[in-house]
Amino acid sequence: MEPHAFDLVIRNAHIATATDVFDADIGIRDGKIVALAQSLASGAEEIDAAGRWVLPGGVDAHCHLSQPMNDGSVLADDFFTGTRSAACGGTTTVIPFAVQKKGGTLEQAITDYHAVSDGEACIDYAFHIIVADATPHTVEFELPGLIERGYTSIKLYMTYDDLKLDDRQILDVLAIARREGAMSMIHAENTDCIAWLTDRLLAKGLTAPRFHGLSRPNVVEREATHRAISLGEFLDTPILIVHVSSEEATDQIRQAQSRGLSVYAETCPQYLFLTAADLDRPGFHGAMCICSPPPRDATSQQAIWEGLANGTFQVFSSDHAPFNYNDPKGKKVGGEHGNFTHVPNGIPGIETRLPLLFSEGVMTGRIDINKFVAVTATDPAKIYGLYPRKGTICIGADADIVIWDASTNITIKNENLHHNVDYTPYEGRPLHAWPAVTLCRGVPVYQDGQFTGRAGYGAFLRCERPTPAKPKPNFGKSTPWLDIL
Amino acid sequence: MEPHAFDLVIRNAHIATATDVFDADIGIRDGKIVALAQSLASGAEEIDAAGRWVLPGGVDAHCHLSQPMNDGSVLADDFFTGTRSAACGGTTTVIPFAVQKKGGTLEQAITDYHAVSDGEACIDYAFHIIVADATPHTVEFELPGLIERGYTSIKLYMTYDDLKLDDRQILDVLAIARREGAMSMIHAENTDCIAWLTDRLLAKGLTAPRFHGLSRPNVVEREATHRAISLGEFLDTPILIVHVSSEEATDQIRQAQSRGLSVYAETCPQYLFLTAADLDRPGFHGAMCICSPPPRDATSQQAIWEGLANGTFQVFSSDHAPFNYNDPKGKKVGGEHGNFTHVPNGIPGIETRLPLLFSEGVMTGRIDINKFVAVTATDPAKIYGLYPRKGTICIGADADIVIWDASTNITIKNENLHHNVDYTPYEGRPLHAWPAVTLCRGVPVYQDGQFTGRAGYGAFLRCERPTPAKPKPNFGKSTPWLDIL
Amino acid sequence: MEPHAFDLVIRNAHIATATDVFDADIGIRDGKIVALAQSLASGAEEIDAAGRWVLPGGVDAHCHLSQPMNDGSVLADDFFTGTRSAACGGTTTVIPFAVQKKGGTLEQAITDYHAVSDGEACIDYAFHIIVADATPHTVEFELPGLIERGYTSIKLYMTYDDLKLDDRQILDVLAIARREGAMSMIHAENTDCIAWLTDRLLAKGLTAPRFHGLSRPNVVEREATHRAISLGEFLDTPILIVHVSSEEATDQIRQAQSRGLSVYAETCPQYLFLTAADLDRPGFHGAMCICSPPPRDATSQQAIWEGLANGTFQVFSSDHAPFNYNDPKGKKVGGEHGNFTHVPNGIPGIETRLPLLFSEGVMTGRIDINKFVAVTATDPAKIYGLYPRKGTICIGADADIVIWDASTNITIKNENLHHNVDYTPYEGRPLHAWPAVTLCRGVPVYQDGQFTGRAGYGAFLRCERPTPAKPKPNFGKSTPWLDIL
Amino acid sequence: MEPHAFDLVIRNAHIATATDVFDADIGIRDGKIVALAQSLASGAEEIDAAGRWVLPGGVDAHCHLSQPMNDGSVLADDFFTGTRSAACGGTTTVIPFAVQKKGGTLEQAITDYHAVSDGEACIDYAFHIIVADATPHTVEFELPGLIERGYTSIKLYMTYDDLKLDDRQILDVLAIARREGAMSMIHAENTDCIAWLTDRLLAKGLTAPRFHGLSRPNVVEREATHRAISLGEFLDTPILIVHVSSEEATDQIRQAQSRGLSVYAETCPQYLFLTAADLDRPGFHGAMCICSPPPRDATSQQAIWEGLANGTFQVFSSDHAPFNYNDPKGKKVGGEHGNFTHVPNGIPGIETRLPLLFSEGVMTGRIDINKFVAVTATDPAKIYGLYPRKGTICIGADADIVIWDASTNITIKNENLHHNVDYTPYEGRPLHAWPAVTLCRGVPVYQDGQFTGRAGYGAFLRCERPTPAKPKPNFGKSTPWLDIL
Repeated sequence: MEPHAFDLVIRNAHIATATDVFDADIGIRDGKIVALAQSLASGAEEIDAAGRWVLPGGVDAHCHLSQPMNDGSVLADDFFTGTRSAACGGTTTVIPFAVQKKGGTLEQAITDYHAVSDGEACIDYAFHIIVADATPHTVEFELPGLIERGYTSIKLYMTYDDLKLDDRQILDVLAIARREGAMSMIHAENTDCIAWLTDRLLAKGLTAPRFHGLSRPNVVEREATHRAISLGEFLDTPILIVHVSSEEATDQIRQAQSRGLSVYAETCPQYLFLTAADLDRPGFHGAMCICSPPPRDATSQQAIWEGLANGTFQVFSSDHAPFNYNDPKGKKVGGEHGNFTHVPNGIPGIETRLPLLFSEGVMTGRIDINKFVAVTATDPAKIYGLYPRKGTICIGADADIVIWDASTNITIKNENLHHNVDYTPYEGRPLHAWPAVTLCRGVPVYQDGQFTGRAGYGAFLRCERPTPAKPKPNFGKSTPWLDIL
Repeated sequence: MEPHAFDLVIRNAHIATATDVFDADIGIRDGKIVALAQSLASGAEEIDAAGRWVLPGGVDAHCHLSQPMNDGSVLADDFFTGTRSAACGGTTTVIPFAVQKKGGTLEQAITDYHAVSDGEACIDYAFHIIVADATPHTVEFELPGLIERGYTSIKLYMTYDDLKLDDRQILDVLAIARREGAMSMIHAENTDCIAWLTDRLLAKGLTAPRFHGLSRPNVVEREATHRAISLGEFLDTPILIVHVSSEEATDQIRQAQSRGLSVYAETCPQYLFLTAADLDRPGFHGAMCICSPPPRDATSQQAIWEGLANGTFQVFSSDHAPFNYNDPKGKKVGGEHGNFTHVPNGIPGIETRLPLLFSEGVMTGRIDINKFVAVTATDPAKIYGLYPRKGTICIGADADIVIWDASTNITIKNENLHHNVDYTPYEGRPLHAWPAVTLCRGVPVYQDGQFTGRAGYGAFLRCERPTPAKPKPNFGKSTPWLDIL
Repeated sequence: MEPHAFDLVIRNAHIATATDVFDADIGIRDGKIVALAQSLASGAEEIDAAGRWVLPGGVDAHCHLSQPMNDGSVLADDFFTGTRSAACGGTTTVIPFAVQKKGGTLEQAITDYHAVSDGEACIDYAFHIIVADATPHTVEFELPGLIERGYTSIKLYMTYDDLKLDDRQILDVLAIARREGAMSMIHAENTDCIAWLTDRLLAKGLTAPRFHGLSRPNVVEREATHRAISLGEFLDTPILIVHVSSEEATDQIRQAQSRGLSVYAETCPQYLFLTAADLDRPGFHGAMCICSPPPRDATSQQAIWEGLANGTFQVFSSDHAPFNYNDPKGKKVGGEHGNFTHVPNGIPGIETRLPLLFSEGVMTGRIDINKFVAVTATDPAKIYGLYPRKGTICIGADADIVIWDASTNITIKNENLHHNVDYTPYEGRPLHAWPAVTLCRGVPVYQDGQFTGRAGYGAFLRCERPTPAKPKPNFGKSTPWLDIL
Repeated sequence: MEPHAFDLVIRNAHIATATDVFDADIGIRDGKIVALAQSLASGAEEIDAAGRWVLPGGVDAHCHLSQPMNDGSVLADDFFTGTRSAACGGTTTVIPFAVQKKGGTLEQAITDYHAVSDGEACIDYAFHIIVADATPHTVEFELPGLIERGYTSIKLYMTYDDLKLDDRQILDVLAIARREGAMSMIHAENTDCIAWLTDRLLAKGLTAPRFHGLSRPNVVEREATHRAISLGEFLDTPILIVHVSSEEATDQIRQAQSRGLSVYAETCPQYLFLTAADLDRPGFHGAMCICSPPPRDATSQQAIWEGLANGTFQVFSSDHAPFNYNDPKGKKVGGEHGNFTHVPNGIPGIETRLPLLFSEGVMTGRIDINKFVAVTATDPAKIYGLYPRKGTICIGADADIVIWDASTNITIKNENLHHNVDYTPYEGRPLHAWPAVTLCRGVPVYQDGQFTGRAGYGAFLRCERPTPAKPKPNFGKSTPWLDIL
């Protein structure tokens, strides 16, 4: 008997990449896409995708799993539950953060993070490095080696006392990133403005969740965004601004791109689907929506949608930062016994990221299907050095594929989600699309409404140098101060 | 004996689309791409592309072939010589213009244009419609039918006495384009400024070719660009600004896109590779570079490069408008016996378009290979309703494919070009890339340095409604004045 | 007995100029300010201004009096009633328009306008020239002579069938204005957009007054403003955009000024105190607020206030265009028997201009007293060549002075106004300031709540070349195309 | 014998204020302007100013005199020599800086500064306060009292190790300035960028003066300017950016003003008349032009000129920071024995400030005479609470008056200047204007080419709350985060 030509064939796929839309059968062997054709020979397994969008599996480039917290709070999701949830929502790769402790080394951060992730993930994963203690040892000695070893993206914070770097430290890291070709991600909020205002709010007894939003107004994000852009421009090196929330910050980024700078940007579902009003939900439920930057207003939501459509944003991530509401150290207790600064900071969203954008973005016409693929999969894969292994459907790529059911009517209920969190901020929201099947390297990890993966299936990914971090002509923006160094 | 699986297989192709880069064999049958795989069965013909970029054939969305001129000048290229030249430069689809006569109908224009193109073209072609006489009959009666029949892009002129429409006429056409889903292309220069200045220059005896450039300063283009954008915004309908030449016009377009408007833009090689100085070449040779808008300065060149890189421009066309230099009605004679207004207006470039951009854009790192594919093939195909038949390499697409030789060192010489013009403005410029093979629907039309096509091979293409012309949320830019009509 | 040193002394004046605030006695002789001192000798007449602001008399640089209308409507105010009303509101100089007829000469327009104004005006007056028929005779022959004779400002319309010029005609006029040093005022609305939309609204039966506003959306004003700026930039000559109403047009002007262009701008009370909602007043009363451009929304009101405060606007005029509501050819009848296009276009406001701005601008702190003086008197006087005779309080200036009562509480009622119109759009609005005394060349024309002037007192003023129209370095905005002409 | 009506009469003055130009006699009594008239009675002294501009004496709002330096360098000018030099150049008021020591109090700084200035100054003077150690005691306790006592402007540094405040400290000070109505001046350069780059330049041995300029590129100033604006916006309080040097920073300021923010700005002669090339003068002479921010290029010079003309800048100061070139601790020695960081930082210019701007600004037409008065005298007087005592010519103002000779041809030579510095960076530059007479409170301090003042004549001025620091409507830029505090 003739052996099957493929391990798996997806028949009649209506495929979209970040640029194309076409119909084909997909042939998969050894976890890779090896053939695309109008008609393929048989596979050991076959799936008929007739009538359905078949897209690259999502790359969630910003999520927090099993990350040690310095404030005593505990992330609700570890690598198993987090990636399980991701898989069920159409994501096949996650890039959480290996965080350096103040006083600690990056090496230790990496080692520890492998320890908690090895054998746990259900889908593939890479690490971003958070540099929280920019000592010469860390910056000059550790970073180059780690970049070489496949940890090619560095996250820098401009706020949070346990994580923030000052401008000089940021420059030190950016300079190494430039030399070594790494990508620098920046959390851009002016920490001093937030601290100044928070102190006064608390002194006034203004402790409710909604004051979290008020303590970080748009100008705080705009200032830091402009500063981050300036530091990148000063050193002629690419940066990516994470979780952009406001019209003002979006404008700064757009202007920088218009001037020819290599400035990239990410946004998240919470800035499209939540507003400041959600921080004032009855009872203490506003705490469920506390994250930083905070959700803004309808004007900023609109600006974020436009930014997705016109190319200002390249990356759409979840910033999944899962904390239970009712835990002893959860959002409710932390907040009720103190104030908004005691509410663990972040919201869950790793599973709902793609369905929300598909349903409210693609199906409403706000963005087209190619843009959806670009911002959820292809561009993050490119920016973080995972392309073409991840993020697209082409010959040679991993068979990370999602078959979408876009003719469904469901309602988001936390009881149906697969994370380990006791709420979702999107409870009750109707959706019109959800994955039918999620394949990770050709293996279904979600199918027929069930998680079908297993802990340990997910492989660690060493990242290449990000595509856009490579030297490129800076279009006449001369930096003579760098040329002579 | 088993029949071959494919008519043609391209082996070991290093393929780029507008988003992807991957290695595969390409299987072609009946002129279409039917398989992409790591290893394909045999083809009746095979080409080994090892080590070479394999890209979609170029779509030249702006070129003038066999177009009747109202000023007595004669285009040097007809459908045969023009498409021959295109093919030899890696282009597989052209979209020239069926031009309405003042007092004539669109139907006649279309009929006449088919008459001169039928059986002549070596590669596939579609028609843009030039509306030069926006009568109610033309606009309300003819246009809808023609759009329905596959002529879905309309070009409007804001200058040239025999072609220009006033704002009211433009609005009338845009309104139909909006209703019918057609794409409107606009030549944006303020005709009154040009006329005012030209009259004074000539009165002063300032007749040399360089005064052509001086007669159309940047502000003339910026004004008309802003006006065209405003007219499109007023009617909430997409427009595309053709042949953008200056930093100022680019800025207007970028700002409009940043505001969420559906404004598209095209630029051309002459705005990257020529400057105003070329209009002042010794003797009367400056006439060789006379086109409108005219080449600008280094600052604008830089802005155009940036606009290609950051997505401001979606289309890179030749605006091939071929006139001989030495003909009785050519550029030299016309000019010498009169002044710059008597020089036939336009320059050839249908064959050099892609090699120039590949060599100076991709190989220098100014743009990446995906962007090259996007602006030379995919995006024009989408914008003009030819996608996915044209403009990309995917299953089901026409096998319009170019295998590039990017390890060559050649010098542009007119004697080596295949157009019917007696000069090229780029004579002597060194290049590092040129097509090795151009396939149109699987058939080589250029190979081994030889034109291998034939007149009549090229097929006429009926265009679909352009992708981006479909209704989309206008992101809060309310147009209550339209909502009630 | 020693003769009095002065004809009139104003004691204890709290004076503001466009820059200064100080206390002094003002000595007036022969209608001129001849002394300012802490203590002056006696005057034949004396007025004690203790505790009151003493400001330059207003210059209303945009009002329509006794102007022949081409549409059969009739202005309600002639030079007598119009200037009487102006005087009672603190204005001492008006600059209405001598309008050329299509087919007529400027000379005839001037002659006719002198005929209706001679002996009629209660305060001083100059003429703007409206060029409505830009023939070579008018532009090249008449204009230079008239400018020389003291008619130094030219108004150009981009809309209205009986008045509008096309771009070429505007250029012809601007070129003469540049050469002769005149100031060009431009009514900036895109006439084709308005006509296109109006036709469709009427065809739909949408005839109510509010559709007047809808027929001229902001983009229509923005486009024409950008175009007017571009034409001025093309010819390197100053322009002034009249009656700016929208945020978008304001932005265009601000950007032009930021680039160093000599672009001036005017706004009017209706854009601060009315909105589109006023066009939808019950019954047909919306017609009372029909003017062009139409009142906008709160966002544009805010932008106009900001533009006054930050210097974008130099001139605050009334655009007084008085039509009765109940006349046989008035706003009510014209509209009811037809549609919004039959409503005479314009609103009265020559008397309320200054009290509205003083009360709502100065007394609320939106602008300071110096800015009030600048935009209502000094800057218009400079821009139109009347300075220093008019527009300020300094030695040698005409004694055009207003003593303000800023401790009053009144309500605007049409019955108390001195124009000849049967309504005011501001009926019922509370005010906190009104002139106590208006002096024109030292003679009270309004005092103790009574008009105290007389027809024929007002003198015709020949204007000098406007101050800002003089050549100045254009800060690097080279115009090589002009340098060689 | 009848007593003279006035102590001094200036006859036939051709007077300009920030808005007016007129001819009058000026009557002065007790050091104040008490009368302006076409013809005045006699004065005990009389000066005929026929044919000459008579302007308000200059207010130099940014100069360093007798200021203790922390780096061992010594200012060459004390209150006597510095104000002598100022007077000879047409300045009648200076506002140098009382600088707090780290660890010291403001009270001590004020006390010490009075000690070195009492009895020394030849013209009037006020103090700005430099807050260099923003302790709670200083900010919350000392500042309010000092503001109340007439020290109403506070200078904050974003760079220099001995002076800089971090963002939090700046916010603390701005918050008090807001509450108390003081004006905050900010030196805006990103200190970390400068330090990062300087370290690397020095490590490379790049120590020459020109590397001082290279170590502080435009982006460094732009970033800090945007940040300062953001901090002011965050707290809804006015700020003034001092010594703006670059196009980029000017753009940021202009944009902020366009958005309606209360952002003021100052520039200085060195940014109009020097460029980076001057830092590379032969030998070590480039050190003569070392100041911060450094002189830029021709593009920025142009932008600064435009900013003066279009109102972006309100203040034109000298930033006189006088260091000898040849002293043991002077610019030459400091630099030669070390590197550019050892060159005392600053340049002299207190005497040449006004003649340079008059000659190159007014006489070339770049700015008009009113703008000259505004930026050199009136606006600084208003912004720093000295108006109307200082900064204008009006009744009641101090008789600080300069009679200009604008028909001279002189060449700047250090030997002719009256400062105590051994060079001027403008040596050899031709000028066409210089003061003929400088009067301070009616007394000539410079006349007939001679200094005619005396140490101790100058009086200390207590400043009022600055005019523009008063609350004003913020035009819809809501700051709800402040409203609830």
